[in-house]
Amino acid sequence: MKKSLGAKTLIFPTPVWVVASYDKKGRPNAATVAWGGICNSRPPSVAVSLRKSRYSYDNIIDRKAFTLNVPCAKQIKIADYCGIASGKNADKFSKTGITAVKSAIVDAPYIQEFPMILECRLLNTFELGAHTQFVGEIMDVKVDENMLGKEGLPDILKIRPALFCPEVFAYHEVGDYIGRAFSIGKEIT
Amino acid sequence: MKKSLGAKTLIFPTPVWVVASYDKKGRPNAATVAWGGICNSRPPSVAVSLRKSRYSYDNIIDRKAFTLNVPCAKQIKIADYCGIASGKNADKFSKTGITAVKSAIVDAPYIQEFPMILECRLLNTFELGAHTQFVGEIMDVKVDENMLGKEGLPDILKIRPALFCPEVFAYHEVGDYIGRAFSIGKEIT
Repeated sequence: MKKSLGAKTLIFPTPVWVVASYDKKGRPNAATVAWGGICNSRPPSVAVSLRKSRYSYDNIIDRKAFTLNVPCAKQIKIADYCGIASGKNADKFSKTGITAVKSAIVDAPYIQEFPMILECRLLNTFELGAHTQFVGEIMDVKVDENMLGKEGLPDILKIRPALFCPEVFAYHEVGDYIGRAFSIGKEIT
Repeated sequence: MKKSLGAKTLIFPTPVWVVASYDKKGRPNAATVAWGGICNSRPPSVAVSLRKSRYSYDNIIDRKAFTLNVPCAKQIKIADYCGIASGKNADKFSKTGITAVKSAIVDAPYIQEFPMILECRLLNTFELGAHTQFVGEIMDVKVDENMLGKEGLPDILKIRPALFCPEVFAYHEVGDYIGRAFSIGKEIT
């Protein structure tokens, strides 16, 4: 029996990604988001949504760039902090000990200590209501070499990204491998 | 040391959600997507991206509605199949034994056997390139009663949703609880 829970932004899983950008003075900021996902394969693009009130909003509009930084489970406290504090009155990098590295390909910093980062060029903004959606073209994906597995691809059990449960306010990490995509379903066909 | 992997739709995690819709003849279809995420809090909205070639594309445009159905890890084979087969030449419901339930609030079916479902009214479509992004207003979230935990909220370790690793083509399930959101970061402030 299904229970109706109402009109809520409640679905599992949502990601934990830290958006990094430069402000007008060239200072890096880091803002954690859970509202986002890959949105297009060609050009490869990812969407994240921010409220206008967030300090990163103008940064991304002005610089037409952002990075997405994927924390590992051990860095969840830093990621949570970057979703609570505002760049208006806190230097989140010095406060947490993370390092801003200037991207060579987009006008935004990335977080050195996080295992997986995407450098994005702003392609589009869509006004949706409370949130504005930023669509970024993924110009490059960089992963710590010791997080790569077979065939040189990132190993999710080494990276250990976090998940967010909306409404429940819980973070979880990734669990066991359960199957190969575009493959295990073939048994049914 | 970070290694550059190129301009790819590669980030962790992405979800495994099954989009359900009705075709012109009123037959239900189910299409698995990993390109999507919550995109707005007010109105509560979720975005999923589909290629024009997918059978669900016209269904959603015509009916202005879809549901998102979250499979549990045990249903991953069904979800994978719904990403491989096309509704053009397969009745995925009879083939997999899942049941289409007509939503009472949007013109789309949901999947009875899946533990968490969202009923969405199409708000917007954005042409992004290879994919079209469908923004749906979440009209209701329904969860199996036996998947609810404390405070009547869905328990992610009961629902056991799946994650998808792009490029790696691996599915994983959710792992351990690692902290409370908007809370554990306060130690830093």
